[in-house]
Amino acid sequence: MLPLSVLETAAAEMTNYHGSGMSVTEMSHRSKVYQEIFDTTKADLKRILNVPDTHDILFMQGGATFQFAAVPLNLIGKTGKADYIVTGNFSNNAQKEAQKYGDVRVIYSTADKNHTYIPKQEDLKINADASYVHYCANNTIYGTEWKYVPETGGVPIVCDMSSDILSKPVDVSKYGVIYAGVQTNRAPAGMAVVVIYKSLAGQELPYTPVIMNYQTMIEKDSMYNTPPCFTIYMLGLVLKWLDTVGGLKGMEKIKAERAKILYDYLDESKLFKPHAEKEARSDMNVTFRTGDEEKDAQFVKEATALGFLNVKGHRSVGGMRASIYNAMPVEGVQKLVDFMKEFEAKNA
Amino acid sequence: MLPLSVLETAAAEMTNYHGSGMSVTEMSHRSKVYQEIFDTTKADLKRILNVPDTHDILFMQGGATFQFAAVPLNLIGKTGKADYIVTGNFSNNAQKEAQKYGDVRVIYSTADKNHTYIPKQEDLKINADASYVHYCANNTIYGTEWKYVPETGGVPIVCDMSSDILSKPVDVSKYGVIYAGVQTNRAPAGMAVVVIYKSLAGQELPYTPVIMNYQTMIEKDSMYNTPPCFTIYMLGLVLKWLDTVGGLKGMEKIKAERAKILYDYLDESKLFKPHAEKEARSDMNVTFRTGDEEKDAQFVKEATALGFLNVKGHRSVGGMRASIYNAMPVEGVQKLVDFMKEFEAKNA
Repeated sequence: MLPLSVLETAAAEMTNYHGSGMSVTEMSHRSKVYQEIFDTTKADLKRILNVPDTHDILFMQGGATFQFAAVPLNLIGKTGKADYIVTGNFSNNAQKEAQKYGDVRVIYSTADKNHTYIPKQEDLKINADASYVHYCANNTIYGTEWKYVPETGGVPIVCDMSSDILSKPVDVSKYGVIYAGVQTNRAPAGMAVVVIYKSLAGQELPYTPVIMNYQTMIEKDSMYNTPPCFTIYMLGLVLKWLDTVGGLKGMEKIKAERAKILYDYLDESKLFKPHAEKEARSDMNVTFRTGDEEKDAQFVKEATALGFLNVKGHRSVGGMRASIYNAMPVEGVQKLVDFMKEFEAKNA
Repeated sequence: MLPLSVLETAAAEMTNYHGSGMSVTEMSHRSKVYQEIFDTTKADLKRILNVPDTHDILFMQGGATFQFAAVPLNLIGKTGKADYIVTGNFSNNAQKEAQKYGDVRVIYSTADKNHTYIPKQEDLKINADASYVHYCANNTIYGTEWKYVPETGGVPIVCDMSSDILSKPVDVSKYGVIYAGVQTNRAPAGMAVVVIYKSLAGQELPYTPVIMNYQTMIEKDSMYNTPPCFTIYMLGLVLKWLDTVGGLKGMEKIKAERAKILYDYLDESKLFKPHAEKEARSDMNVTFRTGDEEKDAQFVKEATALGFLNVKGHRSVGGMRASIYNAMPVEGVQKLVDFMKEFEAKNA
């Protein structure tokens, strides 16, 4: 979901961007007018995410799946080993992909309880010889979210923030690599933002495709080849919108407010039960079920008819899922809860 | 350059696609409404390009540079060897990238004459043990274009058609793989269309990133991960526009007409000299120069002021370049030639 104002601006500028006579979709990435869009978007992202000068921001083709390969290709060469923490589907796909490139150790998996929780710091035995440790900050399918940044004893942290970047302030200096497919909160699908501690780049495996090479992308400022120009432009519009709602502190406040409305109700509901354990609950994806598959199906059907789209839970969890991303207004969540209450009353 | 009508439709549908209440930029790729866009675009492309059932169409993230790695990763494993024909910058980058993955033989290079020509069939000594032979159909920087499909004695042909796909009918059955970054004629940057003879897939190298795996993409119908949804949608709009101008036969006619206006003038001009040899001339990119760098610079300056954008030649060729892609009207080329005549008269 993208903010309406962002879509309206994109529509208004579609045939003629700022009097240039061109659409952003047809600009050369080497043109002055496009370079300005690129530079502004990158500068805005650096400011809003508070990226220190030790780190660089890359705009890369592909989404998170592309990064599942790019991360080990670029980083695992240091020791040939890497640690992965599996808390859901995407972190599991990430470790499976990484196994092609080195010795991958899954040092913790929450699969034992169908990913209803996040491991505690004391449960993490990170190997000192790991080139990096990888985790996924927010698990969309299971509705869990990391509430802390793990202590790793100096092992660089690689974090997939595809579903919660730009939803709250983050201490970027703690991370070796942050990557995020942009489609959830920020822009059309087909691009990942990568924030990388620059010294980590430059030790890629010899068969790394150049389009996945972090060092090359740093040196060419993401323009080794044609970047996803339109997606970068859309991200830029979203960043300008973020400024109007108080930046990441503003987003964090709204995010907590939205989630509280849903979780407060879930805690008192006698019909709906949350999937995730209380201390692991995601503010972005709220998973719940009635415990009765027929009632779940009925709920999804009625909710969809009322315009609440995509509330069906992923097949590996079942039940329902409310995805409450950045552009979702508080009122939207309130309406959903009102409907849930009604449904509960009818189905008590 | 994209057709204005395409951009206008994209603008009109930006906030609300066909009454769905959603923008294409925010749709789930698993939704029914998006699946319909995807299916229609793929079916239209199959029809317009006349793709036989032996071949499949893939929509992949990244552009041609992504395919420079994907091609050898997927195909070179058969014999460990591949042949490349270098007729410009992009085919040279393709062979350099492929060298990471096997024994790459450059069986012909036109670098000896700064890529002013295309080799003849009798000059091509294709090795029978090559997993495939690769060439680039149209060389944007040098303004040359292949006028024939090489005979290879059964070695599969891989062709980079990034800058001329959908500009004329093509006999797809002759090719093992056709790939094309879509940004030039078809859609915003960030995607490649791949047309693959299905039996060629499935012998990828073990360290092939899953996002580059042709076999996986065939099996998942390009939806292993989130595809570049908006770019596919824009390509769909361009295909609908193509139908209104007579499909590929119509495009080919307009293309020849546009190019003839420019080349006829270049042949009679005493000031401007074409870069490419006559029989290798590209209908998409026309390269020329005055032979005097100061005059070239003056021409670029005046042309740019008049709204002829991006006429400066690439630094490896110098001079000027007119890119006359699908959406360029014949009148646009005529206006450019009128200005060239004026410039010649002033600078005689």
